[in-house]
Amino acid sequence: MTLALEQAARGLGRTAPNPPVGCVIVQARTDQDGEVVGRGFHPRAGEPHAEVFALRDAGERERGAVAYVTLEPCSHHGRTPPCADALIAAGVRRVVVAALDPNPLVAGRGVQRLRDAGIEVTVGVLEADAVRQQAGFRSVIVRGRPWVVAKYAMTLDGKVAALREGNGAVSGPEARERTMRWRDELDAIAVGSGTLGLDDPALTTRGVPGGRDPRPVVFDRRAASDPQARAWRPGAVLVTAPDADAAAHEAAGITVQRAESLPDALSGLAGLGIGSVLLEGGPTLLSAFLAHGLVDEVRVFVSPKLLGAGLSPLTAPARPMYEVQALHEVTVEPLGQDVLISGLLHDIPRV
Amino acid sequence: MTLALEQAARGLGRTAPNPPVGCVIVQARTDQDGEVVGRGFHPRAGEPHAEVFALRDAGERERGAVAYVTLEPCSHHGRTPPCADALIAAGVRRVVVAALDPNPLVAGRGVQRLRDAGIEVTVGVLEADAVRQQAGFRSVIVRGRPWVVAKYAMTLDGKVAALREGNGAVSGPEARERTMRWRDELDAIAVGSGTLGLDDPALTTRGVPGGRDPRPVVFDRRAASDPQARAWRPGAVLVTAPDADAAAHEAAGITVQRAESLPDALSGLAGLGIGSVLLEGGPTLLSAFLAHGLVDEVRVFVSPKLLGAGLSPLTAPARPMYEVQALHEVTVEPLGQDVLISGLLHDIPRV
Repeated sequence: MTLALEQAARGLGRTAPNPPVGCVIVQARTDQDGEVVGRGFHPRAGEPHAEVFALRDAGERERGAVAYVTLEPCSHHGRTPPCADALIAAGVRRVVVAALDPNPLVAGRGVQRLRDAGIEVTVGVLEADAVRQQAGFRSVIVRGRPWVVAKYAMTLDGKVAALREGNGAVSGPEARERTMRWRDELDAIAVGSGTLGLDDPALTTRGVPGGRDPRPVVFDRRAASDPQARAWRPGAVLVTAPDADAAAHEAAGITVQRAESLPDALSGLAGLGIGSVLLEGGPTLLSAFLAHGLVDEVRVFVSPKLLGAGLSPLTAPARPMYEVQALHEVTVEPLGQDVLISGLLHDIPRV
Repeated sequence: MTLALEQAARGLGRTAPNPPVGCVIVQARTDQDGEVVGRGFHPRAGEPHAEVFALRDAGERERGAVAYVTLEPCSHHGRTPPCADALIAAGVRRVVVAALDPNPLVAGRGVQRLRDAGIEVTVGVLEADAVRQQAGFRSVIVRGRPWVVAKYAMTLDGKVAALREGNGAVSGPEARERTMRWRDELDAIAVGSGTLGLDDPALTTRGVPGGRDPRPVVFDRRAASDPQARAWRPGAVLVTAPDADAAAHEAAGITVQRAESLPDALSGLAGLGIGSVLLEGGPTLLSAFLAHGLVDEVRVFVSPKLLGAGLSPLTAPARPMYEVQALHEVTVEPLGQDVLISGLLHDIPRV
């Protein structure tokens, strides 16, 4: 299943609104001893699913084999025929599934279809890892909005930037490299109009072999941002108020998403095929997301430096300490000079 | 030497203005094989030094032995006769020293005296650990002021407290326990008048077996704090301005230290026999210390929680990000739910 998860990871950031899925076909006499005869992953929506690629890769050697797949094989006709049927037709002996599909059209029916055909099915192997990979897909299917990952880097006195001029990177090159990997893996990158105006960031993925850029999403209620900013590449989305004058942005070919509220805006992004969002700033936007309960996951680089006066990553909401929001599934990873602390504020939807 | 460092640690927080020192006497035929015949540590100023206790403990068995001592044996007559002479008189064969004594009265003379008597001397074994233990002593001897350790606990969005009511501990029980150990080990604990007024903290060591309380030091420029606050136990120090009216504090038996500036105040604390200070708050006091370059070491509990609006651990000085102060000798330690990130802003003075 580890190999299947590695296959699936190749599709991260490329498959929305579909999930990233990997499949590995093994010819095995025992559970400990086997030969991988086929591998596949779902590269993007509209292309065949992982199982189909893996079976093709196996050629004639899939009969009587075991298929490891990171998500329950589909049982419905979407843009492609049901994968459960493909596995049955291929004559595999056993299917090992990491996690069930939360899609109400599947949700156990894929597994049932396999079992009905006499195939032995095991569910739940490395499930947590698979669910992590599928967070965006699961979030959209179950909650109707993207999975939101807030990312920032702060000093050991909790500052993301100096008050005035003279700013620069808080964290080191390893943190930057990791951020670029996340940009490659998530569907979209979101910033507020403040960040856009101050930094004119490119919001691209740099230095990742085979990397691709996430879709830039700019939250700009008044549509006052410069339509010539670097972020406005094809696929970019302006999120603005229903009555904002976004004529200049529309004229520049930018997708304009109008919303009454942040929750509405996120539903709208899901409708544009965005399953996961890397929220990269700044404090105003992050505070608004948190106040609306829209931050699902947090990834923070803490840099062992003291600044003094400066900008805090969060400036709202005002609440007592006993209402502080604790992260769960926390991980701590020293990364170069910095420490990466990550965790979840919400559970990733399961079935 | 590890055993000698453990001996020395028993005196931490109790020996100022003297250093904590440990000594172990070993009868050994080879470096790998030996029997510990004596142990000792310096319990407090005025009492004999570690070497004397260890030699006493060895009884008649110190002849031809190896003495491991965490600080260079003294060569001068202080309140006790020179330890170098005691080791010579005892007939030890070899002395292993962790670190040289920065005291200009010693500073290599102790080692020279031993060598002149025909004793083999090795210097520098586990030196960094020994220097750490002796930070307060070294700071006072070399810089004329205590070693200052700033400690705080903050959320993952960099807040040490909520803005208004409803505050409580940011970090968990393991962090509290560690803080209590530090209180036991450092000479004094410092807070500002704001913290005193808001929290009326006891500033005591709780839950440490054999623990003792640090001397409370309250920075209160206007001497406006309540002389009946819980912190004012015997040994407590009020640091205030030269012209402040501290009559009520003096009447309550509180030591009043008047100073024109923070650097002056710290010199004054050294004069009161305080070698190390645990700076526990709040933001105003910590910011003033940092602005004056008076923070030597930082120990921060980062708690994986998001608050929103709140108090930052540091609110000054305002400077650009490229003037951020990087910590060195950084350590990262997961501690219960929290992460302890520690490091130095200044080097501990050596010889």
